[in-house]
Amino acid sequence: MPNLYLALVHYPVVNKNGDVIASAVTNLDLHDIARAAKTYGVKEFFVATRLTDQIELTKRIIGHWTNGAGADYNPARRSALELIRTKASLEDVVSHIDAQEGVRPRTVATCARKFADAISYQRMRSLMNNGKPHLLVFGTAWGLAEETIRQADYILEPVTGNSDYNHLSVRSAASIILDRLVGR
Amino acid sequence: MPNLYLALVHYPVVNKNGDVIASAVTNLDLHDIARAAKTYGVKEFFVATRLTDQIELTKRIIGHWTNGAGADYNPARRSALELIRTKASLEDVVSHIDAQEGVRPRTVATCARKFADAISYQRMRSLMNNGKPHLLVFGTAWGLAEETIRQADYILEPVTGNSDYNHLSVRSAASIILDRLVGR
Repeated sequence: MPNLYLALVHYPVVNKNGDVIASAVTNLDLHDIARAAKTYGVKEFFVATRLTDQIELTKRIIGHWTNGAGADYNPARRSALELIRTKASLEDVVSHIDAQEGVRPRTVATCARKFADAISYQRMRSLMNNGKPHLLVFGTAWGLAEETIRQADYILEPVTGNSDYNHLSVRSAASIILDRLVGR
Repeated sequence: MPNLYLALVHYPVVNKNGDVIASAVTNLDLHDIARAAKTYGVKEFFVATRLTDQIELTKRIIGHWTNGAGADYNPARRSALELIRTKASLEDVVSHIDAQEGVRPRTVATCARKFADAISYQRMRSLMNNGKPHLLVFGTAWGLAEETIRQADYILEPVTGNSDYNHLSVRSAASIILDRLVGR
């Protein structure tokens, strides 16, 4: 199993005009990405937002499916949503993993745009085989803020299909990227 | 580009108890799967439901993003949602493609369970290279009814990650399967 963590960032991300914003948490992001994370053996799935009401909302959703009526109704959903942790920032996510693993994770930023120094899926897959913790970072809204991408240890190539259309949902992108990096 | 079509079936599908039901259309299924379909060069994306109110709802959502306020707000979303067609049944989808292509499409059913005669991704990918139309079929709710799966020309292997957890959302599964079958 990979030593892999995943973060879904809600601040700092950009809106369609490129302004840095804090986005709202989307219920189906939690469900879809938690289910994909569980499928691909991700250890923890972090929802990072600095908005305290959004942290409360996220905890309420998780609670419904892990302790509430949803847990009985759908145990498979429970085991996925149990992977979710809330954190106030990406820095807090990195500190949490550092404390848990005894080493800082290598961070891997994802973006729909191609960066000149982007790393290929094949190369990243091979690097992640070293057993050390890696943190895959996804942005909501129109994607991670440029500064957050630049600060990552690696920037992953965008997912290209077989067209020039590069507007996948973050739920689709996270699923495909997990499959490419750690699928059997 | 592949000669590929995609159908999202809302009847006949099964609920958690295995009963055959008609499921409700989910807004985010339309958006996520249309965006993935556009990314991977799918020609048309069919929403199949026998419920007329659900067909109306689907058309209203598509209209908002292709002719309404959403078309101006987000042209990239428009070009994805323009791929969506509504049909009353999977048979109607097949007839539509038959009329358009002059040949019936080969149908490829997807399922989270493994069938003894399931076809591998590698083999399916190679078969789809013949230029003839293929129709990828996905089920909502707890998946396609057994009879629908059995009637397909091919049953695709389930998506396995690297765990025994097989509860991906249909949005995630469709994205991963498109990437495996027709990604560059």
